Amino acid sequence: MDYFINGEQYIEEKNKALEVIRAEPKVFDQRNIYFMSRTEKIEHALIQEKRVQELLSTNLHIIARDKKITQEVLQSIYSIMDWHTPFEITRLMFIPTIEQQGTEQQKEAFLNPAKEYKIIGCYAQTEMGHGSNIRSIETTATFIEETDEFEINSPTLSSTKWWVGSLGIASTHACVMAQLYVKGNHIGLFPIIVPIRSMLDHSPLAGVTVGDIGPKLGYNTMDNGFLSLNKVRVPRFNLLQKYITVSRDGVVSRPANINPRITYSTMVFVRANIAANMGRQLAKGVTIAVRYTSVRRQFGELGQPETPVLDYSIVQYRIIPLLAKTYAMIGMSHEFFAQYKKSVNQINNGKFTMLKEMHAVSCGLKIWSSNTGVYGVDTCRHVCGGHGFSMFSGLNEFFNNIYPNMIVEGDNYMLAKQTTSYLVKSAHDINQRKHVELNDTTNMISRFMNIDNQVPPQQLFTWSGKSPQDIVSDNSVLLDLLSLRAVSMIHNLTVKIYHKGQSWDDSSVPSQGVAAAHSEYIVCLYFSRHINKLPSDSQLRPILDILFKITALSFLTRNTGELYSLRDEAALTRLQINGLESEFIKYIKIAREQAVPLVDALGVPDEKLNSSLGRYDGNVYEDYMERALNEPLNRQGTGDKIREKFYEKYIKPSLHHNGSQNSSKL
Amino acid sequence: MDYFINGEQYIEEKNKALEVIRAEPKVFDQRNIYFMSRTEKIEHALIQEKRVQELLSTNLHIIARDKKITQEVLQSIYSIMDWHTPFEITRLMFIPTIEQQGTEQQKEAFLNPAKEYKIIGCYAQTEMGHGSNIRSIETTATFIEETDEFEINSPTLSSTKWWVGSLGIASTHACVMAQLYVKGNHIGLFPIIVPIRSMLDHSPLAGVTVGDIGPKLGYNTMDNGFLSLNKVRVPRFNLLQKYITVSRDGVVSRPANINPRITYSTMVFVRANIAANMGRQLAKGVTIAVRYTSVRRQFGELGQPETPVLDYSIVQYRIIPLLAKTYAMIGMSHEFFAQYKKSVNQINNGKFTMLKEMHAVSCGLKIWSSNTGVYGVDTCRHVCGGHGFSMFSGLNEFFNNIYPNMIVEGDNYMLAKQTTSYLVKSAHDINQRKHVELNDTTNMISRFMNIDNQVPPQQLFTWSGKSPQDIVSDNSVLLDLLSLRAVSMIHNLTVKIYHKGQSWDDSSVPSQGVAAAHSEYIVCLYFSRHINKLPSDSQLRPILDILFKITALSFLTRNTGELYSLRDEAALTRLQINGLESEFIKYIKIAREQAVPLVDALGVPDEKLNSSLGRYDGNVYEDYMERALNEPLNRQGTGDKIREKFYEKYIKPSLHHNGSQNSSKL
Repeated sequence: MDYFINGEQYIEEKNKALEVIRAEPKVFDQRNIYFMSRTEKIEHALIQEKRVQELLSTNLHIIARDKKITQEVLQSIYSIMDWHTPFEITRLMFIPTIEQQGTEQQKEAFLNPAKEYKIIGCYAQTEMGHGSNIRSIETTATFIEETDEFEINSPTLSSTKWWVGSLGIASTHACVMAQLYVKGNHIGLFPIIVPIRSMLDHSPLAGVTVGDIGPKLGYNTMDNGFLSLNKVRVPRFNLLQKYITVSRDGVVSRPANINPRITYSTMVFVRANIAANMGRQLAKGVTIAVRYTSVRRQFGELGQPETPVLDYSIVQYRIIPLLAKTYAMIGMSHEFFAQYKKSVNQINNGKFTMLKEMHAVSCGLKIWSSNTGVYGVDTCRHVCGGHGFSMFSGLNEFFNNIYPNMIVEGDNYMLAKQTTSYLVKSAHDINQRKHVELNDTTNMISRFMNIDNQVPPQQLFTWSGKSPQDIVSDNSVLLDLLSLRAVSMIHNLTVKIYHKGQSWDDSSVPSQGVAAAHSEYIVCLYFSRHINKLPSDSQLRPILDILFKITALSFLTRNTGELYSLRDEAALTRLQINGLESEFIKYIKIAREQAVPLVDALGVPDEKLNSSLGRYDGNVYEDYMERALNEPLNRQGTGDKIREKFYEKYIKPSLHHNGSQNSSKL
Repeated sequence: MDYFINGEQYIEEKNKALEVIRAEPKVFDQRNIYFMSRTEKIEHALIQEKRVQELLSTNLHIIARDKKITQEVLQSIYSIMDWHTPFEITRLMFIPTIEQQGTEQQKEAFLNPAKEYKIIGCYAQTEMGHGSNIRSIETTATFIEETDEFEINSPTLSSTKWWVGSLGIASTHACVMAQLYVKGNHIGLFPIIVPIRSMLDHSPLAGVTVGDIGPKLGYNTMDNGFLSLNKVRVPRFNLLQKYITVSRDGVVSRPANINPRITYSTMVFVRANIAANMGRQLAKGVTIAVRYTSVRRQFGELGQPETPVLDYSIVQYRIIPLLAKTYAMIGMSHEFFAQYKKSVNQINNGKFTMLKEMHAVSCGLKIWSSNTGVYGVDTCRHVCGGHGFSMFSGLNEFFNNIYPNMIVEGDNYMLAKQTTSYLVKSAHDINQRKHVELNDTTNMISRFMNIDNQVPPQQLFTWSGKSPQDIVSDNSVLLDLLSLRAVSMIHNLTVKIYHKGQSWDDSSVPSQGVAAAHSEYIVCLYFSRHINKLPSDSQLRPILDILFKITALSFLTRNTGELYSLRDEAALTRLQINGLESEFIKYIKIAREQAVPLVDALGVPDEKLNSSLGRYDGNVYEDYMERALNEPLNRQGTGDKIREKFYEKYIKPSLHHNGSQNSSKL
């Protein structure tokens, strides 16, 4: 099962990463992070980064068989340690930006040293005053013809670059997004490489004000920073020139053959990665919750051992659908990457037909997976009861770190419009009998809009007259229901926008539901495709089939108003809808029996869980006590000094302030 | 408006508390807490506690007019500072327990010194292995007749007392809940006062293992602790004797005139306090979010200033209902306390008729207010976008601190049964024409079950044939809809439990919805009563009326399946249901115009907000930068040393590892 859900490559990289981590516990052990101040955490991350860089560059024989750490293994190491270092952005954003937008000369100047960590870079786009609306970014880059330079300037407080990762303490260079002005003309927003700290002693260069933006809910090992540039000059060469050039005498030119849609493709890739990553993170949450609620016992029959908490319906109801969705999320992401690869191949051949749907789908899946992941982990925490609130549950620092997935790369609420506008445009075109590209989304819309009544209703509304059991037993009927629900909501919004002139702002509330219904259909469609790659007699199929049904039923029953409001010919009866809710509970109970092996198959190592409650060996309470004894207030050597100070300075004065003679008899 | 919503006494205490806080910023300023380690935070809290105790005991002339700090002002000080000190549990639990369950002699021995802080106490009930199911607590107290003592013992690791506030570093005494054994007989769970630390030097007494349980998501200024007792002996006197006595020769007796329902009354009071407090906390969240989204501008018409974020529908849709619910939560809690007082008066006269409904209502309101408060604050954070993720938003440490309100005093999911079982029992009795006590809940059930068809349908289903506008214009119709929805759900569950034999475990999922629907009716009922205390020509009425409608519509439209599934004669049409959703949006837009004055009227001081984003003066960005510059990594004196260390040890080795000559030209 682990190979089916995780894939072979992922497992191999994870195993190599674990070898590295386990070989040097002094460097890589994360048990103590819950006691660390922010500064201590950053130092811990820097120690690890230094060691990883040594392993990368010197190929130390730490991995016996293979003797080499690849970039993928490096990523896997940080994924297991579950945090971020101040060197991360140079890898994840600075280098890729130069790769994509730099000339060969620029690559030689900036890319090669960055790859060897001779310079450290960041990507400075967001400003204090502007995040979503990058067109209003205030930082300027003005061409100074006399000296053949650009002058970069932060004209206001709100133009201060803000949130920029790896900037606060680490970067020597920033890739600054600035409004380009040449000869008094505004050209647009472009990236320029700006040295910000001395290569000799790392002190800020003249005109540069730079620092860390301070503590955040999570992500505290990352030195998100601020940067204000007071008329800082850089050579003309430093403007990344693949999409724009400014000549010595100030002539601006852009290459003719650049298709702006290529940047869409990058965004699709980034969002696909968020979706896949959220599946891995939710796997961590459900592993902790399922294991703990299997070990934890509370109440039960008199004279019997108490009942495992996971045997209670209300606990199953909250956890098991999340376990199913973890499988659905990871499973569908394999299919999504396959689709993405196909579209990249097409783009490389000059065809862009898949891109629009991929973009719409990627926005929807990013919303769904980050909402489900973040609040799924929250549910896992809540279901662990009081102990979920302890840092030793492993669920708190973790929740805090994954929270920004809902906000970055397009805030989820804003992103819904990206999906919905594609959906209503497609529905409108189909309704107008215009040509649309054929894909999963337009096929779904065409089929259920059924404008020329090409399909007889009984073939379309496959649930008609069926018992809830029969509906749920057939996965294709569940997919049909998810389709019709989405198409019905898309249709209603299309009418409002195209025929009643409703504004996009007024449509933003229903857009959320439309995007969600579409994504839920796509999740189930992709997940079922992944399952269907298994041989039909695979022993994995029955349980995966159940996880599919639970996921689909969770979607269909989360707001039954969406089912009740289907148009009459397609309507579900009240009995059918109630029946779907009963079937949902029924399948949850069935899956509960296999919950523990299912989380084990997800293969999340104890090192990543970093949790007393989720330990593979089930020694919850022993580990919990061991960790508590290590709390600085208790720890031998430090704790007694702190306690003595607190006692002498603050507690004793209270106890003795009216004389302690009374107390002696107590 | 502030007097109407907060009440005069609250405002007076708050103003006195602010005087104390503002007079000594060195002690009470909270701006720097976001940079503190846990140990530093606890020390900061202890410094404050020491000062507050001095002010309490010496009546220093710090408050000009009144020259006295009362216990209420003390509570208000900590409510503004928004955290908890290691002395808190001695006030909130240790003292009240002795007051309620101690004899006069015991009060002299324990209560008087506790009130003067000559001893510090905690309440040790929860164990590592048992929180919800206190009947299975493992700690024992065995009567030793030879020495006239009790021997207190923790037989297992899981019996270790855990989560006990004020225990980790502060308490000298613990009120330990233990299974009492006398002459081999198990008597039950009772509280015993156990000295745990030396009154001379505060070191743990013989047989006592005690410490702090380590870091948590929030609440980190509280020293939640663990306690293991290895056959520790205490005098027989230390068993709190109001409800049980053990004589010198081991005869157990209980007073005859104790009504166990009195403890219910205490629980009602505690839950009522949680509900009221959550309203105050949500007020803080919406104040920050409304102010920031009014100042923050993003996108807009070309050539115009950008649009305040709060002008976007999707932002209003998330924030304005929370603003309305803040008013509803605080408003309804005034009514709830009034009801509670009435019931206490009745109890003092030996009548217990109100208690059952009060208990059911208090459980439901605790669930609703803590869920709405915690996730409401989360919504406030999310709506602030990226900057919501900064600690300087004021919303993160805050969210973490209020999170356990969903878990303590009965986990919300378990608590729903308390409400639901009262509701289905009442519905069953009414259906069987048995006598039930008359109260808001049974009146609602009787009216809408309408078993003898005493009321003609058109009088009952007051929305029949009405336009959505007409339905919403009449608050009593909205209350009727909320009633019928609740009664319909109660009825369905009653049939399943009483006629189809469905178990309570299988009923636990629908119980959540039943309890929620009932609470939502009660919230609106109590809120409307509070509004109706205003003169009919009060200028406050129109906007309060709108806040009422928004609250009611938010409840009715959150899952429209509950409306669609109403029985036929009562059914709403699809047009009516869609219309309610449109009316909801319409009223949100109207309330948006008064959002800023409405949060100002809530009167949350900047000291409590502790937020760059929520400042009363709107200087968001200036304050944000000032706070960032104070981050330890930046701060003059400390930051340069940390950065130099990081650079020399971890960054420079990377930059220079292959020689730095290449870099010099960059």
